[in-house]
Amino acid sequence: MSLSSQSIPSVFSPEDSRSALQVRHQIRQGVWHSHTSGLASDHVQGNVVILPEALANDFLRFCQRNPKPCPLLAVSEPGQALLPDLGADIDIRTDLPRYRVWRDGAVVDEPTDISALWQGDLVTFVLGCSFSFEQALLEAGLPLRHIEQGKNVAMYRTSIPTRAAGVFNGPMVVSMRPMKAAAVIRAIQVTSRFPNVHGAPVHLGNPALIGIAHLDRPDYGDAVEVLDDEIPVFWACGVTPQAALAQARPAFCITHAPGAMLITDLLNQQLASF
Amino acid sequence: MSLSSQSIPSVFSPEDSRSALQVRHQIRQGVWHSHTSGLASDHVQGNVVILPEALANDFLRFCQRNPKPCPLLAVSEPGQALLPDLGADIDIRTDLPRYRVWRDGAVVDEPTDISALWQGDLVTFVLGCSFSFEQALLEAGLPLRHIEQGKNVAMYRTSIPTRAAGVFNGPMVVSMRPMKAAAVIRAIQVTSRFPNVHGAPVHLGNPALIGIAHLDRPDYGDAVEVLDDEIPVFWACGVTPQAALAQARPAFCITHAPGAMLITDLLNQQLASF
Repeated sequence: MSLSSQSIPSVFSPEDSRSALQVRHQIRQGVWHSHTSGLASDHVQGNVVILPEALANDFLRFCQRNPKPCPLLAVSEPGQALLPDLGADIDIRTDLPRYRVWRDGAVVDEPTDISALWQGDLVTFVLGCSFSFEQALLEAGLPLRHIEQGKNVAMYRTSIPTRAAGVFNGPMVVSMRPMKAAAVIRAIQVTSRFPNVHGAPVHLGNPALIGIAHLDRPDYGDAVEVLDDEIPVFWACGVTPQAALAQARPAFCITHAPGAMLITDLLNQQLASF
Repeated sequence: MSLSSQSIPSVFSPEDSRSALQVRHQIRQGVWHSHTSGLASDHVQGNVVILPEALANDFLRFCQRNPKPCPLLAVSEPGQALLPDLGADIDIRTDLPRYRVWRDGAVVDEPTDISALWQGDLVTFVLGCSFSFEQALLEAGLPLRHIEQGKNVAMYRTSIPTRAAGVFNGPMVVSMRPMKAAAVIRAIQVTSRFPNVHGAPVHLGNPALIGIAHLDRPDYGDAVEVLDDEIPVFWACGVTPQAALAQARPAFCITHAPGAMLITDLLNQQLASF
């Protein structure tokens, strides 16, 4: 496996990336330990999964078979801690605000630095994140209730299966955003332009058709009201790979802590497909 | 006003247009008097409105203010009966299977040739038609129930107002196609590529939100069942200008008869915006 960021232009302006670099350095220095929503908001943020090489091939195939919940932005060489294709001076061991350390499928620690845990066989996966398409929706003038209300987005385990690969398996997790019909149509147009960050929705309307019994009881995140003249719209969610990890129970792995993403130098607009 | 077909490439292959030309000649010779659905199906078909010059400026502004129901493909000079920008040897007086002649807002005749009615002040408007986007939906593997059942599409007057221009005014008319959620998402992507033939839907879900009380009682066309796991999807419809004409009650005008469209040499794929 080589570091790859297929279909992402590798040229970006130092001016545009400067704030992303500054934020990463502040995170590395321990100034910021929390979620990254709204930080360097023109820039692509990524879900991070770090696995021993022995499991990496299975996980890579899992991502490539399930591109909507697991859109791959980059995969490192084993032991490679720097990710120059994603940004200047990115060190995956120090540049996330908070990590989760998993042993046998359970979270055992949430450190702000994983240098002491680093091994020569660790492979890093960076997956696109909904922050990118949410910025595009906001710029298109579409309101997002969970952001207006300062909540986390509502997420649900569904009856939509993922395509298994090796030990990785499990249900697709989706995020839900309520919208009026005209906004639904526009949101499908806007997010279709961003296949690398979950792309178009996977469902809209009746939640029971994808195995969601209670919209007011999300499995992750916060409940958000759906008004009478609104339609719930469901996007594939980056929590899907974490659910697959929890089910596979690898002896050891590391992920970002929820909401505490890797901030890259890539611009969201660089991911637009047309 | 000059004959215009903005944003439509003017180059098309004689091979591709040949069948359209042959069909038009058969229509001109009186071989075919009926609807044009499925004829020369790779080619753009158009709604036709022919008005005296005194009303043409109002109608042109009405179309430009309401591009979703009234997507203008071409506007002739006064008295110009040939439309070379839309196809070889098109004579608007003879090349439609059937016309409607309106006097004071009422249909008074449905001839197959309007040569005897032609006047030097008549301006022809050709508007995009849903046949083009329906072909794209079928090619994308999306089933269309009204076509499967050999019915006309269901159409409804809505509470969505058009933007008035001069004497032209009235409600937007929409066509409805029922689909499962995944097909709705794909259909929005597919039809967004074709703004010249009504483009993306204007509404989906609850019909009451756009003033439709009974889905099973369309105002035009045939009723089509909506199953429990389906969502009704509504597109702006080319019947809208005919409804505005009926309301404006011009002393004299001519339109195509419903379903009996002008077959052009343009290919549907030439209208795709990306």
